[in-house]
Amino acid sequence: MIKVGIVGGTGYTGVELLRLLAQHPEAHVEVITSRSEEGLCVADMYPNLRGHYDYLRFSVPDVAALGACDVVFFATPHGVAHSLAGELLATGVKIIDLSADFRLRDAEEWSRWYHQPHGAPELLGEAVYGLPEVNREAIRGARLIAVPGCYPTATQLGFIPLLEAGLADPARLVADCKSGVSGAGRGASVPSLFCEATESMKAYGVAGHRHLPEIRQGLQLAAGQPVGLTFVPHLTPMIRGIHASLYATVADTSVDLQALFEQRYADEPFVDVMPAGSHPETRSVRGANVCRIAVHRPQGGDTVVVLSVIDNLTKGASGQAVQNMNILFGLDERAGLAQPALMP
Amino acid sequence: MIKVGIVGGTGYTGVELLRLLAQHPEAHVEVITSRSEEGLCVADMYPNLRGHYDYLRFSVPDVAALGACDVVFFATPHGVAHSLAGELLATGVKIIDLSADFRLRDAEEWSRWYHQPHGAPELLGEAVYGLPEVNREAIRGARLIAVPGCYPTATQLGFIPLLEAGLADPARLVADCKSGVSGAGRGASVPSLFCEATESMKAYGVAGHRHLPEIRQGLQLAAGQPVGLTFVPHLTPMIRGIHASLYATVADTSVDLQALFEQRYADEPFVDVMPAGSHPETRSVRGANVCRIAVHRPQGGDTVVVLSVIDNLTKGASGQAVQNMNILFGLDERAGLAQPALMP
Amino acid sequence: MIKVGIVGGTGYTGVELLRLLAQHPEAHVEVITSRSEEGLCVADMYPNLRGHYDYLRFSVPDVAALGACDVVFFATPHGVAHSLAGELLATGVKIIDLSADFRLRDAEEWSRWYHQPHGAPELLGEAVYGLPEVNREAIRGARLIAVPGCYPTATQLGFIPLLEAGLADPARLVADCKSGVSGAGRGASVPSLFCEATESMKAYGVAGHRHLPEIRQGLQLAAGQPVGLTFVPHLTPMIRGIHASLYATVADTSVDLQALFEQRYADEPFVDVMPAGSHPETRSVRGANVCRIAVHRPQGGDTVVVLSVIDNLTKGASGQAVQNMNILFGLDERAGLAQPALMP
Amino acid sequence: MIKVGIVGGTGYTGVELLRLLAQHPEAHVEVITSRSEEGLCVADMYPNLRGHYDYLRFSVPDVAALGACDVVFFATPHGVAHSLAGELLATGVKIIDLSADFRLRDAEEWSRWYHQPHGAPELLGEAVYGLPEVNREAIRGARLIAVPGCYPTATQLGFIPLLEAGLADPARLVADCKSGVSGAGRGASVPSLFCEATESMKAYGVAGHRHLPEIRQGLQLAAGQPVGLTFVPHLTPMIRGIHASLYATVADTSVDLQALFEQRYADEPFVDVMPAGSHPETRSVRGANVCRIAVHRPQGGDTVVVLSVIDNLTKGASGQAVQNMNILFGLDERAGLAQPALMP
Repeated sequence: MIKVGIVGGTGYTGVELLRLLAQHPEAHVEVITSRSEEGLCVADMYPNLRGHYDYLRFSVPDVAALGACDVVFFATPHGVAHSLAGELLATGVKIIDLSADFRLRDAEEWSRWYHQPHGAPELLGEAVYGLPEVNREAIRGARLIAVPGCYPTATQLGFIPLLEAGLADPARLVADCKSGVSGAGRGASVPSLFCEATESMKAYGVAGHRHLPEIRQGLQLAAGQPVGLTFVPHLTPMIRGIHASLYATVADTSVDLQALFEQRYADEPFVDVMPAGSHPETRSVRGANVCRIAVHRPQGGDTVVVLSVIDNLTKGASGQAVQNMNILFGLDERAGLAQPALMP
Repeated sequence: MIKVGIVGGTGYTGVELLRLLAQHPEAHVEVITSRSEEGLCVADMYPNLRGHYDYLRFSVPDVAALGACDVVFFATPHGVAHSLAGELLATGVKIIDLSADFRLRDAEEWSRWYHQPHGAPELLGEAVYGLPEVNREAIRGARLIAVPGCYPTATQLGFIPLLEAGLADPARLVADCKSGVSGAGRGASVPSLFCEATESMKAYGVAGHRHLPEIRQGLQLAAGQPVGLTFVPHLTPMIRGIHASLYATVADTSVDLQALFEQRYADEPFVDVMPAGSHPETRSVRGANVCRIAVHRPQGGDTVVVLSVIDNLTKGASGQAVQNMNILFGLDERAGLAQPALMP
Repeated sequence: MIKVGIVGGTGYTGVELLRLLAQHPEAHVEVITSRSEEGLCVADMYPNLRGHYDYLRFSVPDVAALGACDVVFFATPHGVAHSLAGELLATGVKIIDLSADFRLRDAEEWSRWYHQPHGAPELLGEAVYGLPEVNREAIRGARLIAVPGCYPTATQLGFIPLLEAGLADPARLVADCKSGVSGAGRGASVPSLFCEATESMKAYGVAGHRHLPEIRQGLQLAAGQPVGLTFVPHLTPMIRGIHASLYATVADTSVDLQALFEQRYADEPFVDVMPAGSHPETRSVRGANVCRIAVHRPQGGDTVVVLSVIDNLTKGASGQAVQNMNILFGLDERAGLAQPALMP
Repeated sequence: MIKVGIVGGTGYTGVELLRLLAQHPEAHVEVITSRSEEGLCVADMYPNLRGHYDYLRFSVPDVAALGACDVVFFATPHGVAHSLAGELLATGVKIIDLSADFRLRDAEEWSRWYHQPHGAPELLGEAVYGLPEVNREAIRGARLIAVPGCYPTATQLGFIPLLEAGLADPARLVADCKSGVSGAGRGASVPSLFCEATESMKAYGVAGHRHLPEIRQGLQLAAGQPVGLTFVPHLTPMIRGIHASLYATVADTSVDLQALFEQRYADEPFVDVMPAGSHPETRSVRGANVCRIAVHRPQGGDTVVVLSVIDNLTKGASGQAVQNMNILFGLDERAGLAQPALMP
């Protein structure tokens, strides 16, 4: 049994981790921390967990207790993992960080987007970007894994086959992405109120969203050259789900895009290339660690449209984190992640 | 491995059965029937099942194929089980019927509410009402199980402790129940359209809903006498969930209601009596086979308010059907039903 | 043109007042106050008002500026009107208070429910409870009007015909009420987040909600005797709407309830008694200053079920406030309130 | 008073027309037709209209009755206006057609997209495309007006300033559009069910949507040359609203786009160019005849992002139809269209 610690478990990625790990055959949550909720039973905060974690209470973060685990997940705001990772790694525990702290390879770029100095630049060299479809081998040997963001996961998985094959013009990529409201977290804020967010659609962060440099970094690695990316996120009145609508221009319209995508992901347990002509729905991945993708070339033109959907809390966060844990510890990559999406 | 057949699997209780059975360690779906969708892969109708049932196509109902199973679930409109049950039982297969066909013990009353003759009155004698919290022993030996309706499950589990204890005035029970829209099924109808059902609340069927006689039958068995019940269902803008708000008058206000409920359900794996003062949310049981209950006596008066929530498709239909199967075949009652609710 | 001032216009009742008054032929908003948003254009906070109030900015509350108006609406948390009303009345301005400050006639009861001393008991004697269907004459001559709460409006309008006629047993009234989330206001709070409130239903405040004494006070006046009321509010996943499902026992089942309700409200411009057998939907009053009511006696029994729906922000708050203003100033009671509900 | 007839008033554009005309100071609905609902009071189908149209019943379409009106609105599926327009025009009545029948100038292209012969090609010459911001003068003298579709309205208003100024590369326009579910109409269909459409996002019609040729036609007129357009519509879980996210490449990045848009729409009563940096929300136009637009050039690059929102039933259909009527009859263009959006 893998002993699991969770730092900062009161948010949506925290409760999603607990939901998934409750079903995991080879992992057991030993410690979960929260400064604000110290002493509270997790099931008192999240009644869906009643009967599953009756033994588990939030505790104040403690390096000894966390270090006694095999792996520690960070489900925290940015900055927290910076301050704790070094000390924890020294105990020998593995770290899987769901925050943005180690996603960007360049500490200066991180500072520009997060408006504070990078707190652990010395660890950037060994941090592995935990997108298994790209980095599986590196994940196996990692000590510190940076779980990709939700928009970056959906967007990279959609664009990568085109870029790796050198098909798309890298200078003019457009990612029009729609996210459920849970992406904004569980903090009390007016824009996330039911009455503000329901029955409406809006773009946000058009001038520059923090996931932009992360996506760009991943696409550049796939393309082997700089990319020009326009990324527009939208707030959508649903709890879960990312729908990435991706636009690229291809010079060669003779390539069989369906085959290209199917081959790229043929061995991937959590990427589903749907049949030609499909329109994936976000609800088809609700609560499931799956990315469903469809590729179109409308009207026979040279614009390719890729539709890529995930659940932002599962394949876009906690499910992907568990997938990383499975790889890291040599388990079946599907362990604890096999349940179908909840539909309707 | 228990061989499972499903008759009529295209509706919401059908896909919910498939979702739950995909995770079941000791059951395997062999056959699923639909006249209208013959030949279609179930995963083409329900993309959340892609990767889980790639072998499974809808077929025309066939007694030989169904009879080769160990158990057949009916997830059909009323009347269908009437016409097939006798022939199927003769093959030795067990039947778990999610429809209303065998829920009422009185064929004449059934006819009055369903406006057609009862199609199999000869089977009523052996049909067992599949509410495990009341009929577990009878379920073990049954050949034909009638899975309770969604409103009846939430309402009976909420009222039963009061009635069995002789505490509530049986003449004046009020059940004000709120249901998600999935209770209306997957048929195309104007009132179930998104634009008709969302952002609104309404009562329906106040003059008389088909679940009224079923609830009354169960409450009378618990009370040992006739009951007077006012049952008002409401359509609520959510997919899943029943919230039953139950009102009863008690003559003796000295009884510890919290203890009464906790004792009644102490050994029940799927009834969760919440701490005193709780307000259960339907989302806390989304996709889970659980009924959460809280009991209140506001302002110290003689009116008891019981709040009882279930997921209408899980504990209110397909989850309860699987629970019945587990009991029927001597499995762990929790098999395949252990996942926490999806929240948020 | 009636000169209007609004104290505390940043919440949902504030923007609803502005929406309604933008259409009013005989009223003009001169002043709107907010300490936190001083200097901000109202249309910058509420973009739906762009083009309607380009001249209007939030200002710090100022007795001289407010006193120069003909009427001041308070759209504030409780306690604020207490502190300002006396001084404002002294300037000769009329006050229409949407908060709870002057709804209860008994200052001590107010203190018990609001956990603070009543701040202006000397004004209670002249405060008029602004339910036009009961108090129209008193409203005409008032200086200080307490606009009823949302639950109290829907509940009183539904029960009053039965109680005034002496038909219902006053000892056992049940009000099972469902409210949209806007009833909780625009303050940032976790339970009102989209991801917490959508796709779920729950009761709250079963032990005692602040609208209970207000409803009871009104029902007792109608009944001419004490009443026993069980009031259970529920949070419903929709923005606007109250659905009150009201239960009462009648001794005489020979009375024509439909006629009783139609006669009681025959001259009321904003109460719509629907045809027998109806089930009013909250969306049928979305944004409209209307209460729609249907009355049922299910199964011919002695329990009467009244269904009463309003928009909590319109007939349950700001629309009713404008209706009071119209009465107060001798205008057509429908002025500015004639638009149909928005549907779908 | 302008006498109004409505053909096919049972759908969502029909009830929206009735809602808007109920408030119109100079129009009166005389006739409304529906074959399926003959004899039914409109308020029995749409309870939000109770008290507003008590005299009005659906009748079978009759040329004499419609011809006695001043203007007839068609709120019908495509093909109906084709069959009736000629005969009606002969009576001297004006026609404002909300369907697609006269939107495309090329009858053959119409046939390709609607899979049936064009039923009235002889009227195409005089049909005026009713986008007031482009065709106001032509509308004034028209007999037959084709009201633009919802996606075409939002998309054209967003792209036109760029194309008219010759700024955008016309070969590579992308319109990623999100629509509320009411765009699919009130017909009973499984994909429009609450349980299918809520809590999910999906693209549809990527291979080719019927609004594509209409948008392309309008953009080509604005650009004065052929355009290459990729148009991807998405179904969004909300009742009303179109959010068009528009992408274009500009060669000259020195142009002040904000000023360009503000100047283009300076005199338009129903186009609101929001301040630089804005993100318009669809709810800010709910029920209002307004298009709100914001223009961005993210990261200082050469990709322009225009955000354009409308209510698909108002500025995208019935409101725009009334606006056309106002222009046609020389009324104040704002008559009956002045109410602010409903928010929240």
